[in-house]
Amino acid sequence: MTEEQPERWSLDRLLALFDLEEVIPDVFKAPNPTRGPWTRVFGGQVAAQSVRAALNTVPEDRPIHSLHAYFLRPGKPGEPIFMHVERPRDGKSFTSRRVKAVQGREVIFDMISSFHRVEDGPEYNVPIALDVPSPDEAPEPEGMFGRMRSMMPFDMRELGPTEPVNGVYRSTRRAWFRTAGKLPDDPKLHSCILSFASDMGVVSAARVPVAGENEWERFMGASLDHAVWFHRPIRADEWTLFDLRTISSSGARGLAAGTMHSRDGTLGVSVAQEALIRPMAPPPPTS
Amino acid sequence: MTEEQPERWSLDRLLALFDLEEVIPDVFKAPNPTRGPWTRVFGGQVAAQSVRAALNTVPEDRPIHSLHAYFLRPGKPGEPIFMHVERPRDGKSFTSRRVKAVQGREVIFDMISSFHRVEDGPEYNVPIALDVPSPDEAPEPEGMFGRMRSMMPFDMRELGPTEPVNGVYRSTRRAWFRTAGKLPDDPKLHSCILSFASDMGVVSAARVPVAGENEWERFMGASLDHAVWFHRPIRADEWTLFDLRTISSSGARGLAAGTMHSRDGTLGVSVAQEALIRPMAPPPPTS
Repeated sequence: MTEEQPERWSLDRLLALFDLEEVIPDVFKAPNPTRGPWTRVFGGQVAAQSVRAALNTVPEDRPIHSLHAYFLRPGKPGEPIFMHVERPRDGKSFTSRRVKAVQGREVIFDMISSFHRVEDGPEYNVPIALDVPSPDEAPEPEGMFGRMRSMMPFDMRELGPTEPVNGVYRSTRRAWFRTAGKLPDDPKLHSCILSFASDMGVVSAARVPVAGENEWERFMGASLDHAVWFHRPIRADEWTLFDLRTISSSGARGLAAGTMHSRDGTLGVSVAQEALIRPMAPPPPTS
Repeated sequence: MTEEQPERWSLDRLLALFDLEEVIPDVFKAPNPTRGPWTRVFGGQVAAQSVRAALNTVPEDRPIHSLHAYFLRPGKPGEPIFMHVERPRDGKSFTSRRVKAVQGREVIFDMISSFHRVEDGPEYNVPIALDVPSPDEAPEPEGMFGRMRSMMPFDMRELGPTEPVNGVYRSTRRAWFRTAGKLPDDPKLHSCILSFASDMGVVSAARVPVAGENEWERFMGASLDHAVWFHRPIRADEWTLFDLRTISSSGARGLAAGTMHSRDGTLGVSVAQEALIRPMAPPPPTS
């Protein structure tokens, strides 16, 4: 993150990220603002724009149901990103797309994804955590999440991890979020915005069991991979609970997985991400 | 599954799956036996062989730490599978590989994966379930898992789902497994065998909350995608608990996620998979 405070993104600026231009068949140029909240391009932005590029090549009746991806290199702010779409399969019920996000000659993000015509099936879901304060009662975020909140066009409420029991956390981050303003009704736009939000705070959640908040600077953190499953349509402009749990930390990597629920408990999205949690060499002693 | 009972695979036959031949640079021909336990190639076989192909192109000091994949088409038994390896990145600490598994002109499996030089980091993991009977006390599998057991070179103990509480399952399948015989000490081989096993019983687990065991034939089931994270080296020839939980079922798809633990509780592997759970049209009335 930069030391100086960049301007907060407007919601229009967020929406403008999805104005992709097809430069040659199946290659899309994605806008990439010169000044983002971070010195690197936010991973959720690249994921969301890759989803948009893939959707541009998929029949209208097929929403995205999952994506899997690797963050291969940091994206450079201000340089356009070219989304190269491959079409591994166009099936009767499912469509698959690979998207390589390229800057210069380098792949920065490599995604495979799948789209499914709407079918009926039996319903089940893990429930929303019952002990979570509503967004009206929950505090505004502080610290790192506060800085994120102050730069991104999202309303956020931050609830932190649950108390560990015998050293084990049920949740390592719980947060409410919604866009700072109403969105159009297009469900595909909502799936793009949810993809954007699905990369917010996951590295931090993965790090909770092994690093107290004051120790975070002792670790280099980065998103390594990303998986998102879209179970049911939910709105990104209504309060959504993102409840994350750390599964494992070992070998300088940590895996966190979580769910996004609307206020009525509807399970909309599941997320899994492995993060780099690399201990930094201690600073040299001051003389 | 075929009605007639095919011969049980020997452990040697399982190991022979990993004798890949490089036919042109970065394209490997994978053996594919004419008679498997299923009329389609078992998905875990293709995943494991894809891991082996990727490992063939990765520096020796980098174990696999994750894979993400889609099962795009059913594999045909008896026809070789060609593993096309792409190299999106060779970094200082991480190596990424894509593998397309191809039969004829069709991609049947599309995988992206990552390999990491061994680093130290802080340790944390979700615990092994404490209420699970040991493999010595647990029953041999029956029904569908019994048929799987009778054909594959694995010892298995099947513990089924936990009792639901307020309609919610903590686990939707718990099983112990190990190879039916000792394996060489090569950790890469163990990661291939664990990849093979990571596709065993996940579709069934996903289906538990929405279909009783006698209703399974009312649903068409298939693995759609697959994600595996390798946290710590564990041995595939020692008892390993595979504990799965269904996260969601909706729109004819179900997501299950789980962990693999060695008997001492070491968390070795995490798995997530979405399955097709498609209600079948009822059979025509008999006259």
